[in-house]
Amino acid sequence: MSNSHNRWTRWFPWLAWRKSYQQSDLVADLLAGAVVAVLLVPQGMAYAMLAGLPPQMGLYAAILPTLLYSLFGSSRSLAVGPVAIASLMTGEAVLAFAEIGSQQYLQLTVQLSLLTGLFLLLLRMLRMGQVVAFLSHAVISGFTAGAAVLIALNQLSHISGISLAGAHGAAELMMTFWQRLEQLNPTTLMIAGVALLLLVLWKSLLPAGLTRLGMSKTLASMLGKAAPMAAVIFGLLVIGLGDYDQSAGVKIVGAIPAGLPEISVVNIFQTPDNQSIWHNLWILAPSAFLIALVGFLESVSVATALAGKKRETIEPDNELFALAIANLGSAVSGTMPVAGGFGRSMVNDAAGAKTTLASVISAVLLLITLLWFTEWFEQLPKAVLGAVILIAVLPLIDIKSILQTWRYNKADGVTLFTSFVAVLVCGVELGILIGIGCSFVLLVWRVSQPHIARVGRVDATGHYRNLKRYPQAQHQGLLLIRVDESLYFANARVVEDSLMQLALAEGQSGHLVLICSGINFIDASALESLERLQTKLQSAGIVLHLAEVKGPVMDRLAATRFIDHLGQGKVFLSTEQAVDYLTQQLEWTI
Amino acid sequence: MSNSHNRWTRWFPWLAWRKSYQQSDLVADLLAGAVVAVLLVPQGMAYAMLAGLPPQMGLYAAILPTLLYSLFGSSRSLAVGPVAIASLMTGEAVLAFAEIGSQQYLQLTVQLSLLTGLFLLLLRMLRMGQVVAFLSHAVISGFTAGAAVLIALNQLSHISGISLAGAHGAAELMMTFWQRLEQLNPTTLMIAGVALLLLVLWKSLLPAGLTRLGMSKTLASMLGKAAPMAAVIFGLLVIGLGDYDQSAGVKIVGAIPAGLPEISVVNIFQTPDNQSIWHNLWILAPSAFLIALVGFLESVSVATALAGKKRETIEPDNELFALAIANLGSAVSGTMPVAGGFGRSMVNDAAGAKTTLASVISAVLLLITLLWFTEWFEQLPKAVLGAVILIAVLPLIDIKSILQTWRYNKADGVTLFTSFVAVLVCGVELGILIGIGCSFVLLVWRVSQPHIARVGRVDATGHYRNLKRYPQAQHQGLLLIRVDESLYFANARVVEDSLMQLALAEGQSGHLVLICSGINFIDASALESLERLQTKLQSAGIVLHLAEVKGPVMDRLAATRFIDHLGQGKVFLSTEQAVDYLTQQLEWTI
Repeated sequence: MSNSHNRWTRWFPWLAWRKSYQQSDLVADLLAGAVVAVLLVPQGMAYAMLAGLPPQMGLYAAILPTLLYSLFGSSRSLAVGPVAIASLMTGEAVLAFAEIGSQQYLQLTVQLSLLTGLFLLLLRMLRMGQVVAFLSHAVISGFTAGAAVLIALNQLSHISGISLAGAHGAAELMMTFWQRLEQLNPTTLMIAGVALLLLVLWKSLLPAGLTRLGMSKTLASMLGKAAPMAAVIFGLLVIGLGDYDQSAGVKIVGAIPAGLPEISVVNIFQTPDNQSIWHNLWILAPSAFLIALVGFLESVSVATALAGKKRETIEPDNELFALAIANLGSAVSGTMPVAGGFGRSMVNDAAGAKTTLASVISAVLLLITLLWFTEWFEQLPKAVLGAVILIAVLPLIDIKSILQTWRYNKADGVTLFTSFVAVLVCGVELGILIGIGCSFVLLVWRVSQPHIARVGRVDATGHYRNLKRYPQAQHQGLLLIRVDESLYFANARVVEDSLMQLALAEGQSGHLVLICSGINFIDASALESLERLQTKLQSAGIVLHLAEVKGPVMDRLAATRFIDHLGQGKVFLSTEQAVDYLTQQLEWTI
Repeated sequence: MSNSHNRWTRWFPWLAWRKSYQQSDLVADLLAGAVVAVLLVPQGMAYAMLAGLPPQMGLYAAILPTLLYSLFGSSRSLAVGPVAIASLMTGEAVLAFAEIGSQQYLQLTVQLSLLTGLFLLLLRMLRMGQVVAFLSHAVISGFTAGAAVLIALNQLSHISGISLAGAHGAAELMMTFWQRLEQLNPTTLMIAGVALLLLVLWKSLLPAGLTRLGMSKTLASMLGKAAPMAAVIFGLLVIGLGDYDQSAGVKIVGAIPAGLPEISVVNIFQTPDNQSIWHNLWILAPSAFLIALVGFLESVSVATALAGKKRETIEPDNELFALAIANLGSAVSGTMPVAGGFGRSMVNDAAGAKTTLASVISAVLLLITLLWFTEWFEQLPKAVLGAVILIAVLPLIDIKSILQTWRYNKADGVTLFTSFVAVLVCGVELGILIGIGCSFVLLVWRVSQPHIARVGRVDATGHYRNLKRYPQAQHQGLLLIRVDESLYFANARVVEDSLMQLALAEGQSGHLVLICSGINFIDASALESLERLQTKLQSAGIVLHLAEVKGPVMDRLAATRFIDHLGQGKVFLSTEQAVDYLTQQLEWTI
């Protein structure tokens, strides 16, 4: 019984939460679901706009995918649906192969969702969730900040009414904006300005104000989170009262077809004309893989942070699977890739979500909106959506964390800066790849500069320490050298040269003990280098010994002829043993 | 005096050798120079052919560059001049932008030499000779073997008489060869076959045979090295006697302009039409950098190997400078990039070269050839040159070393194989970059799987060892964990998760000691991860301690707030101290 129970909860984590679910939890989930839904309507439409899709696509992406995540996800408060960065990446990927508004654009988007889901599924099957470990904190910080700036620049068009179509990358967007400045639509700019002001003030001042007026703190904070909806209502009122879409050319969202997305597997595989579906999947694969990676990373980071606060745990394998299914859900709903969003998850959690039931509620509320209330939003100025996106992505630029990284370690700082600039100059996809490349090169560079210390005995303690740091340490004329790094191709030559120099400069004793306590691995280049060093030392009349060789390293060396070639050289369990043996031997020879 | 003397010898290493130079050395150098010159004539023409250049260009590349290297080089027997891989890379680089035989092709070649020299000079000025450390042994083996196969496939055309113009990459070359098989010229194939047989047999059988006939061993071995010249003479005789170039369409070298190369700085900067020189330099830069890197690496490897045999030393800085000047010499002579060749240097050394005077001799002999004997070589069948190249590059495929690498470490084996295949499929330049990328990714992958051991005291010795390897080791109920790897982004999460799991599974003592003897660096991602771990452990009522933190790591940690946040946690100098302190504390609390 218990086994089969475990089997089910392994796939459906919510089954385990059911037992302790109380009525008060239900109330909390209902409330949180409603708050998130109010946020989702404008954000969904805005992110669809960012991806170059019709507004309803953003809402579709928050129904079936969200419901599927609720079934399989292990995070109680992660809000899965359309997110800013994945939307930007979708737009960038699909725009390379189709024109906005074309049938092909929609089909490529759906196929991108399919591929993103399949890649996540593949990662799950290969148990490769750890692949996100290859994205360093610095790359993520720089990439996220760069993407946020790029998203913000993309909003310039909606906020000012100036068309920036055809412009890619930060520099081109700004240039085009500047060149077409005379196209600026003052009414649009005004609406955007007021919406921005409303968003900022509502969020920061309203809750405190309402509390002071006697409203309960919880309710006041809930109302504070409805800022985007307030901006939407403002936008609708302005257009409704002034007809600025007609009179002043303010761009509005326009017709949103009512009704639910058509759930269809067949649509995914349709291609226009005679194009092969394989061709599409092939050209979209790199983008889909990056969206899967970045989406998974964002989701797991947010989920882990939220779970940590409540002492819950996140199962990365569950998350991979749940996100995979959610993206496949996006594909069958005919919309764009999804992920767990940073901002909305925070709101969901702060609004009191207890389980994924909150997400189910918000999905149902969106469904109701789509069925009966789409008309309400057709008059919405795009400028307001632009303002909503702007406010949503600004927190992604985490200046404090950027400064901290720079201060702690310059190499990480360089990676962060490179990722940031690369995203702005070369776009999100190439940008993150350049960032990853930079972090790899700097890791190899770090490995290539190993710390090499001549050590001596710190008396009485029996410990051997760097002579430069412990001048009182005794070396009894022996050359005891500790290399504080695994030996890889990147440092093999440096280590070889440094040891040879040290040996020739001071090797009166005729012995060199290489202390391997910091050596966790020796690759083929380094083994060759060690063999060469041993030969050179031998010709110079110096015997090479090893000490404190770790188990796994010794196993590997034992399989080669290196140990045999050591000749007079020995392998000591500890430095102390080496010193005892060699000083004794030196006394004998004297 | 001595100081100024040192200053001079620092730049001109041969000044130091002059003092001990004897008459016998002069005889040896003269002989070695002559042997190398005999080899250089066919090889120079063959490598020019490989680079898509007229045959005299290969000879030009062995005069001024060789003389300049003799002035500045620190290796006594390195033979600098045209080499196989650099020629292949030159051809690949220039062919992308110009047609073989055009004026532009020649100019781009010269500009490539200029850039190669400038990059080497830049590396010298930045003292970045260590940059070759980024090329792992596996990448070099795979790359060299792949390039050798590619060079061999390129000879198919000369050996068979089938035109392979327009075909790039191994697969295309073979496909084209197969498709045009009916173009096969039997006479050409026959000449190539006999030349190959002659080369193999001459080299392997002649010296032994001559010695048995009573010739001195040295002379016999010298004559053995003249195999390529023997093949050349055979080729000239065949064409001279049979007129097969007219009657059977055998392709011959054709007119070689007599006289010396025009030494000109102006020619370097000429561009056809209105093209900007900067544009040329820009498009050639990546290729030039790779040629500089590979050429420097090949030269230093050969020079080090030869110097090692005679207990001499090579100064990488000198070599960088000398090679830079040699390549600038190539540019002003209007020819292609040069490097220290593997095969010819071996021959030079084996023929008894004592100093770089041997290279001066061979350069002078080539100069004489160019002045008065070029006519002799005009009737030479290209098939013979193809055979000479084939025999020259075969030793670059070092099967034994490849198998050894594979056996020692599968990751290096994968890198080797990837580099090999990538060169064949994508060409030399992209191939070596893919190989380097592969070696970097695998290094990061290796780092991402750190060895984490729970340790205990091996009694009496005071040493702490892995409990799995030393079952007798005692841990007194304490959780002592050693991580055998620096903490980078690539392994931060794995370490965090593993430590947390270990702590939750066994942490009855309420303490976790992280032994940092294997940790040589902690990057920003890992620091964040450690902070997160500390917080999580604290919530679980477990105190995190550190032990054996290395000096540089401690300095860095001390600059952050991590140590303050440890709270009750302490930093112990040694594991022993940590155990003493904690067991005492546990006894107190009991």
